[in-house]
Amino acid sequence: MGEHIAVLGAGSWGTAFAKVMADAGQRVVLWARRGDLAEAIAGDRENADYLPGVRLPATLTSTSDPRRALEGAGTVVLGIPSQTVRHNLTSWRSLIDPGATLVSLAKGVELGTLKRMSEVIADVTGAGADRIAVVSGPNLAKEIGAEQPTATVIACADHERAVALQRACTTGYFRPYTITDVVGCELGGACKNVIALSCGMADGLGFGANTLATLITRGLAETSRLGAALGADPLTFAGLAGLGDLVATCSSPLSRNRTFGARLGRGETMAQAQAAAAGQVAEGVKSCSSIRELALRHGVEMPITEVVHRVCHDGFDPREMAGALIGRKTKPERER
Amino acid sequence: MGEHIAVLGAGSWGTAFAKVMADAGQRVVLWARRGDLAEAIAGDRENADYLPGVRLPATLTSTSDPRRALEGAGTVVLGIPSQTVRHNLTSWRSLIDPGATLVSLAKGVELGTLKRMSEVIADVTGAGADRIAVVSGPNLAKEIGAEQPTATVIACADHERAVALQRACTTGYFRPYTITDVVGCELGGACKNVIALSCGMADGLGFGANTLATLITRGLAETSRLGAALGADPLTFAGLAGLGDLVATCSSPLSRNRTFGARLGRGETMAQAQAAAAGQVAEGVKSCSSIRELALRHGVEMPITEVVHRVCHDGFDPREMAGALIGRKTKPERER
Repeated sequence: MGEHIAVLGAGSWGTAFAKVMADAGQRVVLWARRGDLAEAIAGDRENADYLPGVRLPATLTSTSDPRRALEGAGTVVLGIPSQTVRHNLTSWRSLIDPGATLVSLAKGVELGTLKRMSEVIADVTGAGADRIAVVSGPNLAKEIGAEQPTATVIACADHERAVALQRACTTGYFRPYTITDVVGCELGGACKNVIALSCGMADGLGFGANTLATLITRGLAETSRLGAALGADPLTFAGLAGLGDLVATCSSPLSRNRTFGARLGRGETMAQAQAAAAGQVAEGVKSCSSIRELALRHGVEMPITEVVHRVCHDGFDPREMAGALIGRKTKPERER
Repeated sequence: MGEHIAVLGAGSWGTAFAKVMADAGQRVVLWARRGDLAEAIAGDRENADYLPGVRLPATLTSTSDPRRALEGAGTVVLGIPSQTVRHNLTSWRSLIDPGATLVSLAKGVELGTLKRMSEVIADVTGAGADRIAVVSGPNLAKEIGAEQPTATVIACADHERAVALQRACTTGYFRPYTITDVVGCELGGACKNVIALSCGMADGLGFGANTLATLITRGLAETSRLGAALGADPLTFAGLAGLGDLVATCSSPLSRNRTFGARLGRGETMAQAQAAAAGQVAEGVKSCSSIRELALRHGVEMPITEVVHRVCHDGFDPREMAGALIGRKTKPERER
């Protein structure tokens, strides 16, 4: 696995995953964009901004200098927002060891190009599919920071590399499984943010567990349809990177996408919801547009994604959502 | 659909489904075991014991006389606990019209015989598979009573009969889909109670959404494995009667099985949890034993069901559960 692990991005998930790898015995350098945050993490052994209350191990150091993080790193973990991966990686690529494993934690589809994160990484670095891995699963950062038991999925076209990465991040509380279906793993992660927005909207509108469960079921079905069109393994969506990640995100009040959707459901505007989230827009707000375009391009029906897109970008009222989602004609659950 | 619909069993789900059918335009007679409850329902248009606060329509009447409920009924809906279906149906069978559609709302596998409810119904009444239907989905009774939008699945080997039943219970807030996979629909309903117990235990132990999502994902996987062994359609488990029902039950604090499991997780004994549930044992407590036996008979591994069985019947401590469930060897998510 090389000399150390570089984790780029000190948000909640980047920080929690850096801690997992350190707990698994790796030496980890965590890159933070802001110098003051890097210093605070290094000095306090805590990321008070994004993962407060979690003690970070001494084998995890922090820097805001990408060169210090990347030099000699055998594994490079990307924990930055999906729409910034291309820009950041372009500035870092000359610093990355040509044999390093590149690991994506980002969950989204790039606006404009409609590329998945592994495709963006390949574009920018020229790395082959055998060097690019994706981590996705029911992984709320705060719970992993608290060392609650969880499982995840590591996807890489090169099974041996997935197994090496699996060994490098297995701890008593964090249990990774390997698969080779990178496409399915990435789509599961990207689409779940959009479905979580819809679940938040339903919650904000006052609907309970039946509606939540219906949205999760139909949301996973439309994700699987898109996956089938893009060559994913349908079983991936039934697993931890599909169903598991979706359920964790949609059922937890900790989820940013769900919280954002709930504000819209209660009648707040996009601007109000964004202000309440300290200016941040939830990942699903951007991804719903790129995923919808990808679906249109491949002739796949994604009615929930369509509704979320209309609410977030066309001023559609979430109160009309329930009707749009369940008011369809009675018919068999699937075509016979 | 015959002259009227008989709904046998005035628990929360029997009452809510009777209301749905009445709202869909049917004349419904709801049978309650207790005479005082039948009179209260008929007099107050409310089942204050099991579905309080929900106004029942005038086309729904109630009786404790099975003859009055069953005479002339073209559709007979069984809303009684799974372990009592054989006994009750045996006493009612001479009153049931030989052409009537028999609909099971019960979710369980019979102890001893290891039969699904549709098999028990066929055993007792001699009805062919074309006359037996099953209703299952993300259907928390209290939410349906409040007319929150939801979807469900009606399974019957005879598609035309499923469609007739679908027409008879479609309302603005209740949307049924038809399938022909009765086995999958019943297993999804029975197994979800056991998985919900495990989710409750995890909650009682203080675990959050990651663990919940992992249990739901692995629970659905073991349900699907049992389904495959029994000839169910694997797609049923990805739908409303599988995933949908499971997520609704596991994520709602209204679920009896989840609540029961949470008490065990917090360290209460079976007797204490039962006392807190007004003497009632959750369905999953019985079903975990019959489902476990069914799995053993067919050589299917069901680790979550095994743990729930041990906690409920062998005095196993739920605190050891997390280890038993996620502490397995690192390996691929599915065999390659």
